[in-house]
Amino acid sequence: MFALTVRDHIMVAHSFRGEIFGPAQRLHGATFVVDLELRRAALDADGLIADIGALTQLLQEVLRPLNYRNLDEVPEFAGKNTTTEFLALVIYERVRQRILEGALGSDKGSGFHSLRVNLGESHVAWASYEGPVRA
Amino acid sequence: MFALTVRDHIMVAHSFRGEIFGPAQRLHGATFVVDLELRRAALDADGLIADIGALTQLLQEVLRPLNYRNLDEVPEFAGKNTTTEFLALVIYERVRQRILEGALGSDKGSGFHSLRVNLGESHVAWASYEGPVRA
Amino acid sequence: MFALTVRDHIMVAHSFRGEIFGPAQRLHGATFVVDLELRRAALDADGLIADIGALTQLLQEVLRPLNYRNLDEVPEFAGKNTTTEFLALVIYERVRQRILEGALGSDKGSGFHSLRVNLGESHVAWASYEGPVRA
Amino acid sequence: MFALTVRDHIMVAHSFRGEIFGPAQRLHGATFVVDLELRRAALDADGLIADIGALTQLLQEVLRPLNYRNLDEVPEFAGKNTTTEFLALVIYERVRQRILEGALGSDKGSGFHSLRVNLGESHVAWASYEGPVRA
Amino acid sequence: MFALTVRDHIMVAHSFRGEIFGPAQRLHGATFVVDLELRRAALDADGLIADIGALTQLLQEVLRPLNYRNLDEVPEFAGKNTTTEFLALVIYERVRQRILEGALGSDKGSGFHSLRVNLGESHVAWASYEGPVRA
Amino acid sequence: MFALTVRDHIMVAHSFRGEIFGPAQRLHGATFVVDLELRRAALDADGLIADIGALTQLLQEVLRPLNYRNLDEVPEFAGKNTTTEFLALVIYERVRQRILEGALGSDKGSGFHSLRVNLGESHVAWASYEGPVRA
Repeated sequence: MFALTVRDHIMVAHSFRGEIFGPAQRLHGATFVVDLELRRAALDADGLIADIGALTQLLQEVLRPLNYRNLDEVPEFAGKNTTTEFLALVIYERVRQRILEGALGSDKGSGFHSLRVNLGESHVAWASYEGPVRA
Repeated sequence: MFALTVRDHIMVAHSFRGEIFGPAQRLHGATFVVDLELRRAALDADGLIADIGALTQLLQEVLRPLNYRNLDEVPEFAGKNTTTEFLALVIYERVRQRILEGALGSDKGSGFHSLRVNLGESHVAWASYEGPVRA
Repeated sequence: MFALTVRDHIMVAHSFRGEIFGPAQRLHGATFVVDLELRRAALDADGLIADIGALTQLLQEVLRPLNYRNLDEVPEFAGKNTTTEFLALVIYERVRQRILEGALGSDKGSGFHSLRVNLGESHVAWASYEGPVRA
Repeated sequence: MFALTVRDHIMVAHSFRGEIFGPAQRLHGATFVVDLELRRAALDADGLIADIGALTQLLQEVLRPLNYRNLDEVPEFAGKNTTTEFLALVIYERVRQRILEGALGSDKGSGFHSLRVNLGESHVAWASYEGPVRA
Repeated sequence: MFALTVRDHIMVAHSFRGEIFGPAQRLHGATFVVDLELRRAALDADGLIADIGALTQLLQEVLRPLNYRNLDEVPEFAGKNTTTEFLALVIYERVRQRILEGALGSDKGSGFHSLRVNLGESHVAWASYEGPVRA
Repeated sequence: MFALTVRDHIMVAHSFRGEIFGPAQRLHGATFVVDLELRRAALDADGLIADIGALTQLLQEVLRPLNYRNLDEVPEFAGKNTTTEFLALVIYERVRQRILEGALGSDKGSGFHSLRVNLGESHVAWASYEGPVRA
């Protein structure tokens, strides 16, 4: 199995609801360093998993609406705790949707195996979600 | 699959028995940067894999009896080479035991899938063990 | 010249005023990985620049009132842009003050030369302030 | 499952054929930081996945004929794009072959499970190939 | 003294002349991870050393003509060994020239103290040049 | 000013005397990732600060007698706490001596400005010593 990873980042504010979160119930923020890993069983005719430029641009486009935001005010996250692991899932789903729509080529992801999205929140903690490209 | 990782470290002395170890047969030491990864198929009601504070504390508690020790003098390692990969297994087993005892909540780990413990021994070498939380 | 550095981090929300900041004028956030470097011309009688445990604790204490905060609501920052470089200066000043009050020993910093505080805001950007311990 | 990883690097020139590569169609180059991960279900009698010295030497020997080369002039790569992911496969195959020939011991790899080769091409991109040691 | 650093990278081919270079006399290549550090004694009215977006863009523009190139064919490097340290100086000079021309604002660098350019060539080697912004 | 840095590491055991060291008074150990930085005002005729191969070899030779040792039993450290900062000084002195003896060329260091030796003891702490090559 092959895998290609590209890295970008977002800077967001948010707060959490639930006693378990302690001081993180207050409005605070995070830099999330986002690693997007795309897996594929065989290389394409160019010797690639995917065009690294296209993959980098896809990640940027998925991250743009989240970047420089207070996630507490983003309507689709209403009633949710935007934890690191939750955001990893959200980014996975949005990247996957874009691939199925053809963002990485006309085969719409039929050659891809799976995705893994990892969010580094500090030098001592990170969280990820991985799942298939096609159900 | 979701995964959450936290990082800590220990500083230990030890020596190895066996010609294959060359100069590492002498008493020497290591800093092990320890990454504990906990995997789970679905998030809990708070949107979490586990409370990151509780996971960090669990790792600290498991590492404390190993830290600032000469592992050659630790009774339970008698007759064993405390290699990086062996210590990854030891830490996995101790973390797993603590989870089964309820350290990460009253469900005693029933929601968790697996653990991975990675020990970085330098900028050019690391070793890990991964296995299930429940047998 | 000797130098000792310890690392910790904070997670904050803030916004900036001024057109130059573009989308960062919106409420957003950051993880700042904070490196505190303490410089000294000669080692003390124990062979140390400073007790690393005491230096780590000092940094934690200085960071605690900033951590998990919306810096826009912190009274002493009113009317200021809490940029990465500005926060490096703030942390420098507070660490320096604590040293002068004796946090690292009864000599109240007379043996120390200078401090450098670096804040990593992402994998591609960081900012620092350095200055003397004694004026 | 246990895993042991060692790190080395190569510095190569190459160019790519195909419009998708844009400016990378020109002769350029890369430092590839190569991580070789070897997996094994159980430790050997010494408490090891493999002798770390032997694994490091095996990686060096596999990398040597690639290092300080213009890959466009390497006969076995004629007609191929030597992309990061393609090179990960090449290094995997060569490491695997050496293990099957006995480079890590007389059991010729019968105890090993799988290999993963990761090539870091920059601080924001990397690619890997993983596969079995024995077919 | 304040300092702000931004990171980018280039991927180049080159060869060296001189026996001291051994196998690096052959055409090979490198990824250089480039850190540009800008120092300033006092913050500007916005609380900044410089606009991080403008500094990032300035570095990109200086790196663009070097990226994806065979440096052996770049006319201005004829007769020179494009070593890591030499390239650090080249990038320093070009960044400095752009600052003096006003790339970071109408004051044309009068507020800046010095620059440091560091090029990481691998996980085990890097080189830098530092010098003043104004002579 | 130019600077060239190379990285290597040692794995040692030691203990400290003095109540300030707490649990580190017990025999324990450390991996020290050692960065050797050599500074020079102008490049040599080859476009170099120093031959990177020679600098890497010099560092290896200086580290070899320390590696895989219990520093408590090294005669020249008798009565000393082999703290991270103390070891940075020791390595600086030994590298400097080797340069003055001609290890980096027949000019015996007359072209060099200064050295900085940094020892990383974990992902959250490091210490360094810097000083001139010629007194």
